[in-house]
Amino acid sequence: MSTIKVHGSPISNATMRALVALYEKQLEFEFVPTDMRNGEHKKEPFLSLNPFGQVPALEDGDLKLFESRAITKYIAYEYADKGTELLSKDSKKMAVTTVWLEVEAHHFDQPSSKLAFELAFKPMFGMTTDPAVVEENEAKLAGVLDVYEKRLSGSKYLAAECFTLADLHHIPNIFYLMNTQSKKLFESRPHVNAWVADITARPAWSKVVAMLPPKP
Amino acid sequence: MSTIKVHGSPISNATMRALVALYEKQLEFEFVPTDMRNGEHKKEPFLSLNPFGQVPALEDGDLKLFESRAITKYIAYEYADKGTELLSKDSKKMAVTTVWLEVEAHHFDQPSSKLAFELAFKPMFGMTTDPAVVEENEAKLAGVLDVYEKRLSGSKYLAAECFTLADLHHIPNIFYLMNTQSKKLFESRPHVNAWVADITARPAWSKVVAMLPPKP
Ligand SMILES: N[C@@H](CCC(=O)N[C@@H](CS)C(=O)NCC(=O)O)C(=O)O
Ligand SMILES: N[C@@H](CCC(=O)N[C@@H](CS)C(=O)NCC(=O)O)C(=O)O
Repeated sequence: MSTIKVHGSPISNATMRALVALYEKQLEFEFVPTDMRNGEHKKEPFLSLNPFGQVPALEDGDLKLFESRAITKYIAYEYADKGTELLSKDSKKMAVTTVWLEVEAHHFDQPSSKLAFELAFKPMFGMTTDPAVVEENEAKLAGVLDVYEKRLSGSKYLAAECFTLADLHHIPNIFYLMNTQSKKLFESRPHVNAWVADITARPAWSKVVAMLPPKP
Repeated sequence: MSTIKVHGSPISNATMRALVALYEKQLEFEFVPTDMRNGEHKKEPFLSLNPFGQVPALEDGDLKLFESRAITKYIAYEYADKGTELLSKDSKKMAVTTVWLEVEAHHFDQPSSKLAFELAFKPMFGMTTDPAVVEENEAKLAGVLDVYEKRLSGSKYLAAECFTLADLHHIPNIFYLMNTQSKKLFESRPHVNAWVADITARPAWSKVVAMLPPKP
């Protein structure tokens, strides 16, 4: 009876990505909070889980993994028959899902993470938002969302007519941005807006939100 | 007898990533040069292959794919039994390979691409290198290569004792950087240096290099 352990912080967007995949798969797991304020992620034993000193990390029996998207892909494959199907077994459908997984990683992630940092995390930590960084990354994100708007006008989800891991990877950053000025980028594009409403309303995501510490 | 078509430019590091995977798999394909100087990648019909207007794109029968790493992953799965095995069929080994694929994408790619642009592409196009960008990204890449050095001291390749897709994804940027001042970052780390020599000496890679236009 090996227990899956997730190490991380409930407010970390990357940790949330791993958590929502576990909830979609209806897997039991133990959440091990990493004390990031005290730099626990930059010391042993955490560095043996992830030499880059970042959360999340996962243990499943002897297997130790890091990088949130490596964790979600492992969960989706290894527990293919549990919970929501997140990756198709058909190789051509899988290839198209892989395209949109790469789009998230190489187009969406960077501007959305920078905006989440400037507009959600910096205020949380009493730091000052840099308007130039916001402007630059809102312009980049708008270009990406233009492609998404067109794609979602012909397909209910990014990779297919059904929800896949490619949609799931977007949820944490979207969640943070929907509480900032950048929400206009999503709301002004009708198909993107409907997709955002749909993917953030999933019960698995509510369970991740429920793990957040209460607002001060 | 469907023919695989690769659209792109032989000098593009992302195109090279797709090409080296096809050569490792010993697949026949047609290379369709994209006239980037004349902005062919920003117009139809190219935008129907990749709405982000970037090379490479791949066609295999009816299937159209973009994003170099989605192309290589498709090739590795779909043609699993041809040429070099690039991804293990064992799910735990596959999970570890996925970790290192994500490390390439989220840690190595950005600083190495920025350095290749500043130190290899800008001089090629008569543009001026920005020393501040070089300094910042050499420091970032050095941190990543410290982790690689440790990893490669205990494992011949990044993910396993054998070459995998995770190593392959690094080759194009390393090739460009080994002709720049940034080669010191690789050469000063003995295990990284041996790994670089090994992966760039692969016959499949020589075939990609042979596609480069002659130096002026
Ligand atoms: N690409 C990594 C990113 C992980 C990441 O950035 N984690 C942040 C928290 S969301 C972290 O640990 N930051 C501390 C640091 O980078 O030092 C992943 O997806 O897992
Ligand atoms: N993440 C993409 C990057 C592709 C990319 O950056 N391609 C470059 C050439 S190496 C390109 O098409 N640049 C033109 C542009 O971005 O407008 C991939 O891996 O395929």
